[in-house]
Amino acid sequence: MEVQNKYIVIKHHIEDAPKEAIFELKTGTIALSVAPGSDDIIVKNLYISIDPYQINRMKLSSSSQGTSSFAAPINPGEAIDGAVIGKVVASGNAKFQKDDLVLGVFTWAQYSLVKEGSILRKLESSEFPLSYYLGVLGNNDLLRFNGLSAYAGFFELCKPQKGEKVFVSAAGGAVGNLVGQYAKLLGCYVVGCAGTQKKVELLKKELGFDEAFNYKEVKDLNYALKRYFPDGIDVYFDNVGGETLEAAVANMRIFGRVAVCGVISEYSSGGRKASPNMLDIVYKRISIRGFLAADFLNVFEDFFSKTSDYLRTGKLKTIEDISSGVESIPSAFVGLFKGDNIGKKVISLAEE
Amino acid sequence: MEVQNKYIVIKHHIEDAPKEAIFELKTGTIALSVAPGSDDIIVKNLYISIDPYQINRMKLSSSSQGTSSFAAPINPGEAIDGAVIGKVVASGNAKFQKDDLVLGVFTWAQYSLVKEGSILRKLESSEFPLSYYLGVLGNNDLLRFNGLSAYAGFFELCKPQKGEKVFVSAAGGAVGNLVGQYAKLLGCYVVGCAGTQKKVELLKKELGFDEAFNYKEVKDLNYALKRYFPDGIDVYFDNVGGETLEAAVANMRIFGRVAVCGVISEYSSGGRKASPNMLDIVYKRISIRGFLAADFLNVFEDFFSKTSDYLRTGKLKTIEDISSGVESIPSAFVGLFKGDNIGKKVISLAEE
Repeated sequence: MEVQNKYIVIKHHIEDAPKEAIFELKTGTIALSVAPGSDDIIVKNLYISIDPYQINRMKLSSSSQGTSSFAAPINPGEAIDGAVIGKVVASGNAKFQKDDLVLGVFTWAQYSLVKEGSILRKLESSEFPLSYYLGVLGNNDLLRFNGLSAYAGFFELCKPQKGEKVFVSAAGGAVGNLVGQYAKLLGCYVVGCAGTQKKVELLKKELGFDEAFNYKEVKDLNYALKRYFPDGIDVYFDNVGGETLEAAVANMRIFGRVAVCGVISEYSSGGRKASPNMLDIVYKRISIRGFLAADFLNVFEDFFSKTSDYLRTGKLKTIEDISSGVESIPSAFVGLFKGDNIGKKVISLAEE
Repeated sequence: MEVQNKYIVIKHHIEDAPKEAIFELKTGTIALSVAPGSDDIIVKNLYISIDPYQINRMKLSSSSQGTSSFAAPINPGEAIDGAVIGKVVASGNAKFQKDDLVLGVFTWAQYSLVKEGSILRKLESSEFPLSYYLGVLGNNDLLRFNGLSAYAGFFELCKPQKGEKVFVSAAGGAVGNLVGQYAKLLGCYVVGCAGTQKKVELLKKELGFDEAFNYKEVKDLNYALKRYFPDGIDVYFDNVGGETLEAAVANMRIFGRVAVCGVISEYSSGGRKASPNMLDIVYKRISIRGFLAADFLNVFEDFFSKTSDYLRTGKLKTIEDISSGVESIPSAFVGLFKGDNIGKKVISLAEE
């Protein structure tokens, strides 16, 4: 049995800001069965994770591109892969049965043909809504791991102490909102910045941030941070780079720690690159460290069980922004760079 | 008995590049005795350490200025203090006797009046030439510690492994030449950059660097580093900041480490500030850390005994650049920023 299969490609590489027009919705066909002897798996996709880092894979060249999955180039016309949760429709692989819930790196499509060697695992638990396993509980063999990024970047890299002063940028985003909540659970003073008043309200009223502000309404970021952190910042969790990083460094205390999770303001060529004051970095003994959650799989079990507990007891809130259908992917993706999403951006594709 | 005492002041704060004309040689008088009941000490200065960081104290304002001794402002007309080795001429303090060799933070002068509470200690050992105690054996309660900076910054911050690839900027300077020598003693591959052919020859022929190059003769620093490090840089010991830092980051391997000891190219306002590629920092999990040797006093004994051994056995060479007389301080200081010095810059003031 063959069915139509809608999927998304890029028409050409991204050169500056991402625009919906570079994406194209295509329709192909896919067999919902596998040939005898094949170990292919056919997956009906249920939820697709939409993540900013993908823009770097869509550029023609980047010094950071390589062969690893998080950096492999996405080429025009080719199906785009990313983190997806789906249900097995047909399987030539004895480890997977029809109707198994799986997560892995599949195509931005209604159905995906998953070859031997792909990143793929069974979803063992479904205690929480399925989309959580792409976000807050982001799992350990996917490309990106919002929950683990927040947890490992904050606790493992920054080694925060109760009472320390924490600043989070893109705090209304998939990772930032979790960092702020973890920091509050530890007993830190937490300030977040975001790009809309709605997000600011959410951070303060729903997520328990001590303070939050709309960076677009701030004339002087340096001065704003001085006001929120009169004694300086101990930990800055950076999702944006650019002038926010500069202002954070200028306001850090001695032995301040910066975890660089992403630099969304620098992903499109219009964004100004950060030039943090290196003299501050020396005199205040600041550390700036980039990281990938994949390097912290050793704390995955700890992260998963603690975070699940926090979710069960309502100590941690999940913020998701869900659109429907493959057709919504281009605007969802482009919206990430305009700050349209509140929390984790997910595409819902089909009823289970 | 009163004698004439020549000393150096700044006429006004430094606004951009340091020039000799901002300095003034003054002549005062000083009593070579102390009043009964006073705990003052009069020191005849023998060697004065000339260090780039002092420029930051001579600026009108700096976000890094504070009250700590390494950052306290130097004001026009006031005697300038820095690391000095001298001999006690008269002492009202029972712990110090006439003719004791001392080191501490004294004035850029022929004689210094040292008040209670100043940074001051006896020089217990004089196995090596006295000037060594300002440089390669730079001691643990002075403002700056070239030897300890090199040792702690390299070993403690960078955690280098035998066989790793190490890049050192300002490798002909007081700290850089030691870092490269320590790295060679550990068994690393070491490349240094410097600003004259003479320094390049010294690094390769005298100090055992695997490679060295004159950055002024290189058109594309990024390309040059690619050539010297085809497999990438593991450790970059940064003394200069600016575009050298950018090129090093672009050429780093995953989990590369940058120790930022100083950023001399950014000290004067003409210097372009570093904008390292933050995406590289994330994807390659690079760490950039500023440090002060003062934070590593816990390894001082280890540093001092190992370094003394290396000096005794000739495994480590000492590179010093010595000028004579208080009058030579302005050109010596300004020369630091033009790369005039080869190795540690010291002013010799008097016969012992």
